[in-house]
Amino acid sequence: MKHLKTKKLSLLITFFTISFTLSAQKDYKLWLQYEPKNNLEITTKYLNSIKGIAMSGNSETLKIALTELNLGLSNMLGNQIPHQTNIEGSNLIIIGNKSSLDASVQETLKSEFEKTNKDGFIIKTISINNKKNIVITGKNDVAVLYGVFSFLRQIQTNKPIENLSIVDSPKIDVRILNHWDNLDRTVERGYAGFSLWNWHKLPDFIDQRYVDYARANASIGINGTVLNNVNANALILTPQYLEKVQALASTFRPYGIKVYLTARFSAPIEIGGLKTADPFDTDVINWWKNKAAEIYAQIPDFGGFVIKANSEGQPGPQNYGRNHVDGANMLADAVAPFGGIVMWRAFVYSEHDADDRAKQAYSEFVPYDGKFKDNVIVQVKNGAIDFQPREPFHPLFGAMPKTNTMMEFQITQEYLGFSTHLVYLPKLYQEVLESDTYRKGSTVAKIIDGSLYNNKITGIAGVANIGNDLNWTGHPFAQANWYGFGRLAWNPYLDSESIADEWLRSTFSNEENFVKPIKEMMIQSREAVVNYMTPLGLHHIMDTGHHYGPGPWVSDLSRPEWNPVYYHKASKDGIGFNRSKTGSNATAQYAPEMAKLFDNPSTCPEKDLLWFHHLSWDYKLKNGHSLWDGIALKYQEGVDQVGSMIATWNKMENFVDPMRFKEIQMLLNIQNKEAKWWRDACLLYFQQFSGKELPSGVEKSTQSLDYFKSLKFPFAPGN
Amino acid sequence: MKHLKTKKLSLLITFFTISFTLSAQKDYKLWLQYEPKNNLEITTKYLNSIKGIAMSGNSETLKIALTELNLGLSNMLGNQIPHQTNIEGSNLIIIGNKSSLDASVQETLKSEFEKTNKDGFIIKTISINNKKNIVITGKNDVAVLYGVFSFLRQIQTNKPIENLSIVDSPKIDVRILNHWDNLDRTVERGYAGFSLWNWHKLPDFIDQRYVDYARANASIGINGTVLNNVNANALILTPQYLEKVQALASTFRPYGIKVYLTARFSAPIEIGGLKTADPFDTDVINWWKNKAAEIYAQIPDFGGFVIKANSEGQPGPQNYGRNHVDGANMLADAVAPFGGIVMWRAFVYSEHDADDRAKQAYSEFVPYDGKFKDNVIVQVKNGAIDFQPREPFHPLFGAMPKTNTMMEFQITQEYLGFSTHLVYLPKLYQEVLESDTYRKGSTVAKIIDGSLYNNKITGIAGVANIGNDLNWTGHPFAQANWYGFGRLAWNPYLDSESIADEWLRSTFSNEENFVKPIKEMMIQSREAVVNYMTPLGLHHIMDTGHHYGPGPWVSDLSRPEWNPVYYHKASKDGIGFNRSKTGSNATAQYAPEMAKLFDNPSTCPEKDLLWFHHLSWDYKLKNGHSLWDGIALKYQEGVDQVGSMIATWNKMENFVDPMRFKEIQMLLNIQNKEAKWWRDACLLYFQQFSGKELPSGVEKSTQSLDYFKSLKFPFAPGN
Repeated sequence: MKHLKTKKLSLLITFFTISFTLSAQKDYKLWLQYEPKNNLEITTKYLNSIKGIAMSGNSETLKIALTELNLGLSNMLGNQIPHQTNIEGSNLIIIGNKSSLDASVQETLKSEFEKTNKDGFIIKTISINNKKNIVITGKNDVAVLYGVFSFLRQIQTNKPIENLSIVDSPKIDVRILNHWDNLDRTVERGYAGFSLWNWHKLPDFIDQRYVDYARANASIGINGTVLNNVNANALILTPQYLEKVQALASTFRPYGIKVYLTARFSAPIEIGGLKTADPFDTDVINWWKNKAAEIYAQIPDFGGFVIKANSEGQPGPQNYGRNHVDGANMLADAVAPFGGIVMWRAFVYSEHDADDRAKQAYSEFVPYDGKFKDNVIVQVKNGAIDFQPREPFHPLFGAMPKTNTMMEFQITQEYLGFSTHLVYLPKLYQEVLESDTYRKGSTVAKIIDGSLYNNKITGIAGVANIGNDLNWTGHPFAQANWYGFGRLAWNPYLDSESIADEWLRSTFSNEENFVKPIKEMMIQSREAVVNYMTPLGLHHIMDTGHHYGPGPWVSDLSRPEWNPVYYHKASKDGIGFNRSKTGSNATAQYAPEMAKLFDNPSTCPEKDLLWFHHLSWDYKLKNGHSLWDGIALKYQEGVDQVGSMIATWNKMENFVDPMRFKEIQMLLNIQNKEAKWWRDACLLYFQQFSGKELPSGVEKSTQSLDYFKSLKFPFAPGN
Repeated sequence: MKHLKTKKLSLLITFFTISFTLSAQKDYKLWLQYEPKNNLEITTKYLNSIKGIAMSGNSETLKIALTELNLGLSNMLGNQIPHQTNIEGSNLIIIGNKSSLDASVQETLKSEFEKTNKDGFIIKTISINNKKNIVITGKNDVAVLYGVFSFLRQIQTNKPIENLSIVDSPKIDVRILNHWDNLDRTVERGYAGFSLWNWHKLPDFIDQRYVDYARANASIGINGTVLNNVNANALILTPQYLEKVQALASTFRPYGIKVYLTARFSAPIEIGGLKTADPFDTDVINWWKNKAAEIYAQIPDFGGFVIKANSEGQPGPQNYGRNHVDGANMLADAVAPFGGIVMWRAFVYSEHDADDRAKQAYSEFVPYDGKFKDNVIVQVKNGAIDFQPREPFHPLFGAMPKTNTMMEFQITQEYLGFSTHLVYLPKLYQEVLESDTYRKGSTVAKIIDGSLYNNKITGIAGVANIGNDLNWTGHPFAQANWYGFGRLAWNPYLDSESIADEWLRSTFSNEENFVKPIKEMMIQSREAVVNYMTPLGLHHIMDTGHHYGPGPWVSDLSRPEWNPVYYHKASKDGIGFNRSKTGSNATAQYAPEMAKLFDNPSTCPEKDLLWFHHLSWDYKLKNGHSLWDGIALKYQEGVDQVGSMIATWNKMENFVDPMRFKEIQMLLNIQNKEAKWWRDACLLYFQQFSGKELPSGVEKSTQSLDYFKSLKFPFAPGN
């Protein structure tokens, strides 16, 4: 009895000790945990194929690749792998770029090299002097680094490495994070603490996080980062700040990551002392040319500018009677001599334009097709409204065949529960990327990767969900959204489920009893959030400003299109935004086949129903329910889905370290609370108009509508 | 040759691997590194005295104590120590509070228990049945936890544990951190990132950092924390926030840490719907009583309120024609039934009072001596001006014998180089604490610990330097200031050098070749910052608002006492603030002996010379130099001291992990750059008035005064 007691105590203590030791570390390490296999059979199998490492080359990038390989292998397999500088022996991992390889090896890999582009890598088991070795190579050193991460991922995910033959090239040129980070380190729409960039301590203090950030991005193929908010401050372009930007650029460079900045269009006035920022003014043109030269003198591989112009109060060419093409091309000319690009955002809508906000970007930009310079990419938000839990794909995709067009996804969960809701976004991205545009019969992915229209530059941007929280992203599962964005940026045809699979194995465990249910939970999570927030095509009914929680009743904001009531249009006669040909005719911005589909409620996908149609509360859904009942049941379904996510997670205690297990458990409980809040607040509000009872199976709110309306969050983050 | 090359490569890799692995962890672990001894002799010696752990009791606090002991011992000594629930055997560590100990053990420790107060602990080697054991005990469980941390510190610092006999009681009741944290997570005067308190995710998400914060504080005896800014927001007192405060209080409770809040005096108006906050108004009185009851219903051990009233724009009793006593006592009555206290800040000065700002707190508060309720403590800033690199002790200390008076130190380096300057503050605290007040012949410490006037409550507050940076404090050495504050709060008679010694050993290494020079460097660092910022009694000449860098020229702020020129009064005829009897007569606020000393430039300590006197540039210093030369040489000396700190640190590479070594190296280089900036900017500015050449040995600035004046830092942190 006494013995038993002591043993229990020891177990308890071991538990606590482990939590302490792991506390900061596991969460911080993202998907690069490199967990020991603790399985002799698996370890032996790997070690049989890895007897040594031979590296040729001496760049910073290759040193990083070698360090990473060493770290990953020694952590996972428990053995320090010996290094050698020649390639004599067998079962070596040979790493180096193409030109550094022996002529015979180059010859062996000839067809593979033909298939790879600049950043693509090759991982291949080949015979050298009749001895099997694994070569990890590419046309440049960064490609080799990508190959090393990919090779390590094989082992992280328990995949065989006996006869490798991987040739993998990124399908998109610019794979970039957009940080909406302000110079005071607040982050617009940031829910993971504050900005990583400690401007005050730069350039002389290089925080270890900058290195770890670059490493994490390189591991998933991201090759660019926009450091500052699209709602830009011109000070970033002053010498005082450029020196700091240079320090970050130097830190990121060996990881293959280029630095970009947002350019405030009025910078020539604010920091240049000019009287105008007119893109046709010679002084302005020269100011930008000189500014570009100044930047490139310090950062020779500077990526270029992102511009949000004439949108939500930002200055732009229209202030001077010019248009987006005039503005974009002027800046493009400034950076072109140095190989820079301009990402010009299409997220525009005007308070002076009474037309459906969903239509304005298309209306404004399509006439410019073919007029932008070659080094301009028009950056189009996913969703013509604004990063909603679900929107039909943006009609601009495919509508500008002569224009470089890039995708802007939001990784930070502005409209999706901040960092307390587990929502696996790659599922959302995939839905958009594989949407058929009916333009030459192609998907959005084929427009983004340039294959449909043969674009000069291709790109994909993700608005980062990264902050200075210990776990980077606020929610441990939000790390999967960063990861998944990177993987889809590399290859927009990947399946989100496979991405979840590799992320889970790299981040938590290879145990099938963990991976299978949790993968299902992740996949389901996106539909859950749509259900409990904005089912059946509802959108933008979040509370105002901060976008935290429900606010379908908000109707007092100065611009009509900032009010939720503008979007749901609930009244006695029904609910939904009529964007069909009988309404705003937004459907006409799609290819005719698509427009026809959307125009008719009976052919319009039900998931988008209220996006395109205003329908009576009695409208019959495909499952026979009335629209009112259907809406209510969807809200309930969302809540139930979160309930089942919790049930699933609670069974995983044995597979996850105590700290992350508990963290995720706490967060799921918050999500559950908030899913119910959404259901109750929205249904009570809409019920005023429908005048109908809740269908059976839908729980009644224990609070009044007035209670929900009274909730205020003056310090909600990211606002 | 080839062999050599490979070996070098491996070393390089080991280096990198280690940096990666350690990256987040070492910095995060503060002084609780529990480094393995890696020395068989030392380890064996310790293990001979530690054969088992026997714990009696089952509280959360004791579980934490046991976990900590287990973690510390297993990490440092490499062995898991077995646990038992009885005390049979030898060389056991017996932990438990007094009442849980065997009667015989209680009897053995009788005289020790008589010497300990509530939070005091005993660590004693005693004989039980002729077998040697170590008992760690105290009158309550938190005292036991303190004892465990103290015991672990013995081992951390390589001290013997064979015949322990430690009885250690805190000399001050309220040992508290003040967080100037706002509800939006910005931190006023915070230089280590942003607030730890993630209000948005509270109460349902308990960040691991909250636990680690409590643990770190408990390890040094801190027993209270004020969660929010003294420039307060009344929302913290609303139910929505109190629920969050409760969650933090519950997390901190097992670590012996009470939660306190700042109370905005106008809260009854702002969140209570009243028309007034007049402390004589019945509704106001009742509102506060009910608010206190509401808080204590949720947090039974709530500590109480801190109030900044009628100071720098904050509301207070004077808005209603009442005084500080009226305000403080009204709040004191509200919390008294629950055992709460009110810390009423004496940091007041008025824009309507033309008198020397240094005099105003004394003038305003001394007449109230004896009028405050027993559960009020008047909280007096160290330094009558404002946390300067050096100020003479505040004249209020000792001047209110019938009033509980507590010390407010600033740990965050508002005026001392933010978190890029290595300044060891316990040296500063010690200087203040051991200052002789000439009140009954006693030091400041004897006033603070209540022994001089036999106070009802004693307290010491430190304005925290803690943020959400991975290393908590921005600068790794700033951790020593948190640590040192805690140690001095426990015992204000400790020597700052011994504190540095134990901190270095616990945080970095026990190697004498490391500890000795780095301890010297720390001790010297405080004088260095005085020298390169404000030598010879100069003060408050920092740039305006953010207080970053020099700004002796600033003269355009709306209130005279916000301008550096107000403080240095440099002109053709000399420099310094005449606070002697021929000037503002601030000296008269000190005891007569002290006043006499200060009044005469030749007896006034030279370190305070220009604090009390306005002297001509030709005034002869004790070393024979003219005042101008003396000032210039001091600035140069400060710069040289930083240079020698760098030289010292650069030799320490073998004793410190690569990441922290590099971090500190980068920070010292910034400090060096900024020390020169201070020297050059101040000397160029003062030279305009002195009209004299720099003495030999003082380096000339390479920049103009206009250049220094042109520097702007709109996003300096903490402002």
